[in-house]
Amino acid sequence: MGKVAVIGVGMTPVKSSSGKSLTELFVQAAKQAIEDAGVNQVDAMYVGNMMSGFLQNQEHLGSLMASALGREGVPTYKVEAACASGGVAMNAGVKAALSGLDRIVLVGAVEKMSGHTTPQVTAGLMMAEDRLKVATSGVTFVGLNAMIAREYMHKYNVRHDEMAQFPVLCHGNALDNPNAQFRKKITVDDVLQSALVADPLRLYDCSGIGDGAAAVVLAPAEEAKTFTDTPVEVVVSSVATDTLSLYQRKELTIFEGSRKAAEEAFKRAHLTPNDIDVLEVHDAFSVLGVMALEDLGFADKGSGTKLLSDGTCNRDGKLPTNTFGGLKARGHPVGASGMYQVAELALQLSNRAEKCQVRDARVGLSQSVGGIGSTVAVHLLRSL
Amino acid sequence: MGKVAVIGVGMTPVKSSSGKSLTELFVQAAKQAIEDAGVNQVDAMYVGNMMSGFLQNQEHLGSLMASALGREGVPTYKVEAACASGGVAMNAGVKAALSGLDRIVLVGAVEKMSGHTTPQVTAGLMMAEDRLKVATSGVTFVGLNAMIAREYMHKYNVRHDEMAQFPVLCHGNALDNPNAQFRKKITVDDVLQSALVADPLRLYDCSGIGDGAAAVVLAPAEEAKTFTDTPVEVVVSSVATDTLSLYQRKELTIFEGSRKAAEEAFKRAHLTPNDIDVLEVHDAFSVLGVMALEDLGFADKGSGTKLLSDGTCNRDGKLPTNTFGGLKARGHPVGASGMYQVAELALQLSNRAEKCQVRDARVGLSQSVGGIGSTVAVHLLRSL
Repeated sequence: MGKVAVIGVGMTPVKSSSGKSLTELFVQAAKQAIEDAGVNQVDAMYVGNMMSGFLQNQEHLGSLMASALGREGVPTYKVEAACASGGVAMNAGVKAALSGLDRIVLVGAVEKMSGHTTPQVTAGLMMAEDRLKVATSGVTFVGLNAMIAREYMHKYNVRHDEMAQFPVLCHGNALDNPNAQFRKKITVDDVLQSALVADPLRLYDCSGIGDGAAAVVLAPAEEAKTFTDTPVEVVVSSVATDTLSLYQRKELTIFEGSRKAAEEAFKRAHLTPNDIDVLEVHDAFSVLGVMALEDLGFADKGSGTKLLSDGTCNRDGKLPTNTFGGLKARGHPVGASGMYQVAELALQLSNRAEKCQVRDARVGLSQSVGGIGSTVAVHLLRSL
Repeated sequence: MGKVAVIGVGMTPVKSSSGKSLTELFVQAAKQAIEDAGVNQVDAMYVGNMMSGFLQNQEHLGSLMASALGREGVPTYKVEAACASGGVAMNAGVKAALSGLDRIVLVGAVEKMSGHTTPQVTAGLMMAEDRLKVATSGVTFVGLNAMIAREYMHKYNVRHDEMAQFPVLCHGNALDNPNAQFRKKITVDDVLQSALVADPLRLYDCSGIGDGAAAVVLAPAEEAKTFTDTPVEVVVSSVATDTLSLYQRKELTIFEGSRKAAEEAFKRAHLTPNDIDVLEVHDAFSVLGVMALEDLGFADKGSGTKLLSDGTCNRDGKLPTNTFGGLKARGHPVGASGMYQVAELALQLSNRAEKCQVRDARVGLSQSVGGIGSTVAVHLLRSL
């Protein structure tokens, strides 16, 4: 089987209210990635997005975006897996490239959440869960994650202030990222004293509502150096699922999808968690960031927060994590976040992360989560 | 590159009001396909659908359906390209199989349109076009197709009664299909005298609103005969796009996406239109069925209706077309129709089409159209 590499990267700043349309956001990121790659031709493209049908009453984003890019003709379609839409779009692009049918593949993802009321966005997020059996109960998406947080704290005897180190880390990293939505230093006390959203989750435990798009260009790895001096190989693209709904789980504090996708990725890549130099995880809520450290194999269950308190996850630590600010501070334009992660990893591994740069980063891992851990996309990238 | 074959087929009857949920519809078709294939394991699955976000306020259909099938864990996501969602889901499944990453792939597509008012469904269909620039003008999706019909009739001097032969053909074929939505013989006069929907399109020129799901199971072609005596090879899966919107086109009566997808398919397969024994085209409106015959290479521009009047498209003709009733009479559960076509072709090419069976069918072609010809998926299938 051939190998695939990232040869170009683009992204818009994440903004609470961009003033741009879905199309404008996507086109900005896609053009930047195409220009960065220095390619003329694009053989196929894939568009990740979760909520355009519900919020913008717009589907058919594949043709819409190809048309807006002046690239009508190319094979393209939208792929969706809730909050993991960006991650699975990457998977679709990688599979297309590996199929031998498409040589240069553009993968992008976009979400526009501004221009709608918080109840509308909240209803939209709930499309990630079972509409008939769960959403009708009145519970919100934040509420479901709050149940996970409460159970996690109880089961492993973890305090809120320990979990709160995760958003503090992210906000610190975002200070150096000009594309970040929230460039504001916060403390653990700020988190604990912020407004209660769904007990125990407080405002600073939760990622915000934002607009954004990110994109990468893929090419066969053996040709990659003809396009750029710093290509990044996609060693593995792995997707796994779990039961859709939280009520179907025996265990709330482990995302089996994360475990499965990571295990498969490490196995196929012949790598272990020790080989990872930089990590991007799906910290839509503090507890998810901590759980990710455990489920992906970097910490024992219940001990994820130790990697925060001992500095392991710092940008100058052994496992730099969410180095551009993560979902919490770079921002979480839902269906695009998984693509931001991949784009940011590619920047790190090509030594182009500027003020966010991690030293000597050669191998990176991203984890994108859809719904309540119901879909997880893991990508393992490596400098070529 | 390896080859891929269809080893199992499933579909629900298309109904104006099924009384079933999106999940129940998908599961019925998927279980039937899995049982037909006789497989235990499924390595990946893809779900085609257009309108679940808008109509059911439900996304994340990949995990939802995997979970409902008791197959949580498998990699899966939703793929969407408006009315071609079923066709592009097939493309995603084929690429996954060709990538070498997934051996047994389930591809299904589902749409539930019942339980909503016609204005709601009409608004949903318009998500296939540009919401900001076109939908806001007030034109409907039928209205756009009516403009195409008017231009086609004018440009090629084709009469309505000539185009009306298409739905008559489809209704005739559907009489033998127990899964068809409309099993009622109609005449050209019935079409011409039916209610006006959007001039010149009348009720019987237009496919209806319905619920349905269809699915196939894919396996490596070289293993296919271990599962079934009658596997059907997917010779080519090809997707092409055009400008999203009708106003962006210089020419309304040719779908360049159809031409491009078909040309690529024939070229890659080393086949010509003369090799096609059975054809399934996207006749959402009479004019589109006629145009498909031309754009795919079976008739010169403006002369598609001749293949209807001379009997070529009849089930016992040289080019049996829409042999189970097509979108018009089998039904058009929008995002699922492209998958029904592939499933029906697979039945034809494995000599399992029962009363709809075409004699000596060895090679088949399906064409699934998204939006106003904005995305087109073409599949070339062959008996193994």
